[in-house]
Amino acid sequence: MPTLILLRHGQSQWNLENRFTGWWDVTVTEQGAAEARAAGALMLGKGVLPDVAFTSVQTRAIQTLHLALEAMGRLWVPETKDWRLNERHYGGLTGLDKAETAAKHGAEQVKIWRRSFDTPPPALAAGSPYDLAADPRYAGIAIPHAESLKDTIARVLPYFQSAIEPALRLGQTVLVAAHGNSLRALEKHLSGISDDDIVNLEIPTGQPIIYDLDSQLGLNDRYFLADR
Amino acid sequence: MPTLILLRHGQSQWNLENRFTGWWDVTVTEQGAAEARAAGALMLGKGVLPDVAFTSVQTRAIQTLHLALEAMGRLWVPETKDWRLNERHYGGLTGLDKAETAAKHGAEQVKIWRRSFDTPPPALAAGSPYDLAADPRYAGIAIPHAESLKDTIARVLPYFQSAIEPALRLGQTVLVAAHGNSLRALEKHLSGISDDDIVNLEIPTGQPIIYDLDSQLGLNDRYFLADR
Repeated sequence: MPTLILLRHGQSQWNLENRFTGWWDVTVTEQGAAEARAAGALMLGKGVLPDVAFTSVQTRAIQTLHLALEAMGRLWVPETKDWRLNERHYGGLTGLDKAETAAKHGAEQVKIWRRSFDTPPPALAAGSPYDLAADPRYAGIAIPHAESLKDTIARVLPYFQSAIEPALRLGQTVLVAAHGNSLRALEKHLSGISDDDIVNLEIPTGQPIIYDLDSQLGLNDRYFLADR
Repeated sequence: MPTLILLRHGQSQWNLENRFTGWWDVTVTEQGAAEARAAGALMLGKGVLPDVAFTSVQTRAIQTLHLALEAMGRLWVPETKDWRLNERHYGGLTGLDKAETAAKHGAEQVKIWRRSFDTPPPALAAGSPYDLAADPRYAGIAIPHAESLKDTIARVLPYFQSAIEPALRLGQTVLVAAHGNSLRALEKHLSGISDDDIVNLEIPTGQPIIYDLDSQLGLNDRYFLADR
């Protein structure tokens, strides 16, 4: 039966500093690398072994995928990297930590952005050091200026349906190593979570989440692998 | 213009022990990992940056690719792993070191195997600990029992033509992280080296070899990147 494994990247440098990261490219910390290796060892120990893997084009997710696969002895698994699995683009909030964001925009506004399904943050300012227009990995892609969770879902879900569902329909075990909000998009879809509730779903770093699916890709069970 | 970068994996545990490795899966040593990182740093420093990468399904080559890409900040580059870029299959020699091979088969016979273009080593014995029939990465593949260099070329070259040449024809810079003999296959083809001479071509570990090609994929220049 098809099995989907969702894995949020291990702790990144900016997770640690509590800064909005979004599409900015940061690496995992030593702790994040250890989380990724532990996730791979857990999958190996439980015998939940991916046949194929998908990740974003962001270093922290790719590192997490590689460290997990290496810990399983499965670096040979085919992998596809696609920007549509990237983190939500935080626009003008990129780079700000919690205190800076509250000082700049007010605690009330920050709460709205954090809790709203469809309100995007302010657009990234022209000339921002976080502008990715010159990044070759995004050549030919209309880089968003800012995304709500709804916007994020609007590019994650079609990708899931066109690229990932076909592997699941073959009965494969599919690993998706990605980000808090791109994984929320998948959890919302697969678990049927409402717009209001999905913004509150916390996805821990480095913890494999298992979706046991039926042949029609309906949900049989969803659980943290560490709990089984 | 199309550029092909050939990169032999960094030192592996069995390179170090001077054992025939072939399709057996070993990891890079610390020195091999350092070679891979240095290769990536060299490519970055010289501005020879891959748009796309190909590797085998063997851990030592995949590790080398990932470490080199990470050192370049280009983990996001699309990568394809295929068994047809694997090392030559050494059959019954797999696992033997130089002294064991000479003791078992005689120095004269070993010389013939080492220097012959088309004489395969003895087949892997039934029940050998190096039998890969149960390895899931080779499910559905007719695993060879032993390969000559000629046999190796017979699976590397069609793969190069069907999967790698199309990227080169787009004018891309293509990185192939692979093995001594799968890279010999490519060097023979691209440089027009004779059957007699190709067996003597030594390809150093962790040293990017650059093929500057013309739009018809003819050879403009071939050099070690470290020399430029």
